[in-house]
Amino acid sequence: MDDRDKPGHDVVVISMAAVSPLAPQSTPDMPAVEGVRLATAEAGIRYAGRTDVLLAIFDKGTTVAGVFTRSKCPSAPVEWCRAHLRSGKARALVVNSGNANAFTGKTGRAATKLTAEFAAKAAGCKSSEVFLASTGVIGEPLDADKFAPVMADLVARAPADDFLDAAKAIMTTDTFPKVATARARIGKAAVTINGIAKGAGMIAPDMATMLSFVFTDAAIAPSALQSLLEEAVADTFNAVTVDGDTSTSDTLMLFATGKAKDCPRLARASDLRLRNFRRALTAVLANLAEQVARDGEGARKLIEVVVEGAVSKTSARRIALSIANSPLVKTAVGGEDANWGRVVMAVGKAGEPADRDKLSIWFGGIRVAHRGARDPAYDEPAVTAAMKKPEISIKVALGLGKGRDRVLTCDLSKEYIAINGDYRS
Amino acid sequence: MDDRDKPGHDVVVISMAAVSPLAPQSTPDMPAVEGVRLATAEAGIRYAGRTDVLLAIFDKGTTVAGVFTRSKCPSAPVEWCRAHLRSGKARALVVNSGNANAFTGKTGRAATKLTAEFAAKAAGCKSSEVFLASTGVIGEPLDADKFAPVMADLVARAPADDFLDAAKAIMTTDTFPKVATARARIGKAAVTINGIAKGAGMIAPDMATMLSFVFTDAAIAPSALQSLLEEAVADTFNAVTVDGDTSTSDTLMLFATGKAKDCPRLARASDLRLRNFRRALTAVLANLAEQVARDGEGARKLIEVVVEGAVSKTSARRIALSIANSPLVKTAVGGEDANWGRVVMAVGKAGEPADRDKLSIWFGGIRVAHRGARDPAYDEPAVTAAMKKPEISIKVALGLGKGRDRVLTCDLSKEYIAINGDYRS
Repeated sequence: MDDRDKPGHDVVVISMAAVSPLAPQSTPDMPAVEGVRLATAEAGIRYAGRTDVLLAIFDKGTTVAGVFTRSKCPSAPVEWCRAHLRSGKARALVVNSGNANAFTGKTGRAATKLTAEFAAKAAGCKSSEVFLASTGVIGEPLDADKFAPVMADLVARAPADDFLDAAKAIMTTDTFPKVATARARIGKAAVTINGIAKGAGMIAPDMATMLSFVFTDAAIAPSALQSLLEEAVADTFNAVTVDGDTSTSDTLMLFATGKAKDCPRLARASDLRLRNFRRALTAVLANLAEQVARDGEGARKLIEVVVEGAVSKTSARRIALSIANSPLVKTAVGGEDANWGRVVMAVGKAGEPADRDKLSIWFGGIRVAHRGARDPAYDEPAVTAAMKKPEISIKVALGLGKGRDRVLTCDLSKEYIAINGDYRS
Repeated sequence: MDDRDKPGHDVVVISMAAVSPLAPQSTPDMPAVEGVRLATAEAGIRYAGRTDVLLAIFDKGTTVAGVFTRSKCPSAPVEWCRAHLRSGKARALVVNSGNANAFTGKTGRAATKLTAEFAAKAAGCKSSEVFLASTGVIGEPLDADKFAPVMADLVARAPADDFLDAAKAIMTTDTFPKVATARARIGKAAVTINGIAKGAGMIAPDMATMLSFVFTDAAIAPSALQSLLEEAVADTFNAVTVDGDTSTSDTLMLFATGKAKDCPRLARASDLRLRNFRRALTAVLANLAEQVARDGEGARKLIEVVVEGAVSKTSARRIALSIANSPLVKTAVGGEDANWGRVVMAVGKAGEPADRDKLSIWFGGIRVAHRGARDPAYDEPAVTAAMKKPEISIKVALGLGKGRDRVLTCDLSKEYIAINGDYRS
């Protein structure tokens, strides 16, 4: 379907960019999650010839948790989800790409309500049990009526294991779909955790947002689920940055159907039986978050920034983010230059305790600076070889305390500028 | 002089980049400042075939004030200046380009001391009355012995009005020298204020730093001079950003010789006779700061960000900086796209009070968004024409209070990436 020429339409054909050289080598087989059914459709929101709406339907008794953008100007769907998360119950999720329904005022709120009503009618639930996310253009009204004709069909044919198709339907400028899966034991039960995500960084032609949805057949009460999610996000999605820009729509939701065989219903996050689940959930989120960094706009290098010896973990995080968001560090890595002077600069500008004369810096495991000066044993050919690899680790030891943290990012390339600046020409 | 091939040397020939298209159309004639003499030389620190050291000599009785980088890892010269600023007295200033003497440990402190001693001996003053600044490579030892042979000659031939040459000697990747001048009345005296600056943003092949030096023949006590400088910097240099990266060496110093005819000696910044001087000083700094933005690496657009209706001036500044430092806003302006969705994003991520439904946004004076949605009267051809100009104004009205602020920046272009990432290839 290509209706670019129809008046009043604003449909764009996205020519698939080459897949990121940092993409994972293989895609895992995604098992079904008992109690979850997924279907996708072409609603023609903005794109032609591709799916742009995802409907997930959950069995009765499904609980839900969510974390959202810290933006002071969140999108209408983010406001909708926050408002309806209190009940902790979910029966459906609708995600569209092509239009973010952000900065759309009253119209945006009306479109959100209408979408939820269409989905509720088709799925046979209350609209307050429908969760929503939108990604795409900011500031353009979302025509929710386009969802009406596809909803009933989506519900009718939704199979149980279309996670890869689901991941494809929510892509914008992503160059590959992002899925991850893990198994965990809760008591005697074996539960599944499946996740999908779409690209991070604020994304080209006006398309924004990191979205991720995770589904499990474990039986966990809403407040416990929320605690588990907040805990797992801290060192995964919250430790990834592409350009330091925060979308108005960032959304991560976790749905638990409780349908796994023999799974005890867990009321508290502190329950020791959740130990294995907790680890598996963190692994799924970490995997998805890393994929998001690997698909950063124009990325040619995956950069891991490790800061240790800080006065606290919070301080280490701030310093790591200062390094990971520095345009000068990112361009240096893109240029395969182990420019530790710029790392010093980024440490210094973070505003956190740091003592130049105690600072040591490694690129790719090789120490290049030690106690406030160039390492006398600096092996330049070894460092040059390390910088040519697609994955670069930058480690900074501050020598002040025990605070440690790790952040993932990617380099800043001319392709980033082309993606974000050139599309008008 | 080109000694690139000599072993043990690391001399680089800089091929002058094309002058920024945003450069001022003309350079002002710089008058002499009574009590200031300036000279430049080729010390061969890193560059060949260009001046790389500036010596300024001041008459007895000269007072001094300074503001420096907030980096927690400042360069050795910054530490030197901070330590010696307490006396408030200055007799000489030595500035070199080619080597920043930053992150050089004990060697760096020794080089600083040695440089000050060479200058003190030549100028006939105490080394504590010599102020220093260095810009260039980080982490390489600075060979201060190179200053010894040129110092006496510099003192001997220093003329009174070589401000343009002085500005040239401190350039690194700047594409044009930056000078500004103003006259002011203090009582019956007419005083001169001359300033020079070098480029902002952390700058290519390892070369960092914004440096600016301002000279006046007014007679102002050190503490008053310091107050005047801090006040004038707030809305000038502190309101300019190129890439959000903070140098380890940023330095702005103000020297007052007190040699202007009939100038009363002013002990307090609150003295009403300083009203005109205050305005002129701010004008000089504003002019230099704007030149720095105009010479931002790869800059093709000068961007003014105005935020009004914030809850306070501090809040307006934070939001303006969030917009000015956003890679997505900067690439959009570079692409001549009035992408107000990205401005909303940057407002939202600033973490300051903002209400989407009260937000209005203008590009080039044309309102594109009003009260939380696209402006219904949005005139796209007019906006497109405005975005083609070399100077773009982005205004955001928050509708919350009376806080207002203004920040200058430039766009983010492929040339920025080339300057900062490509030089190894």
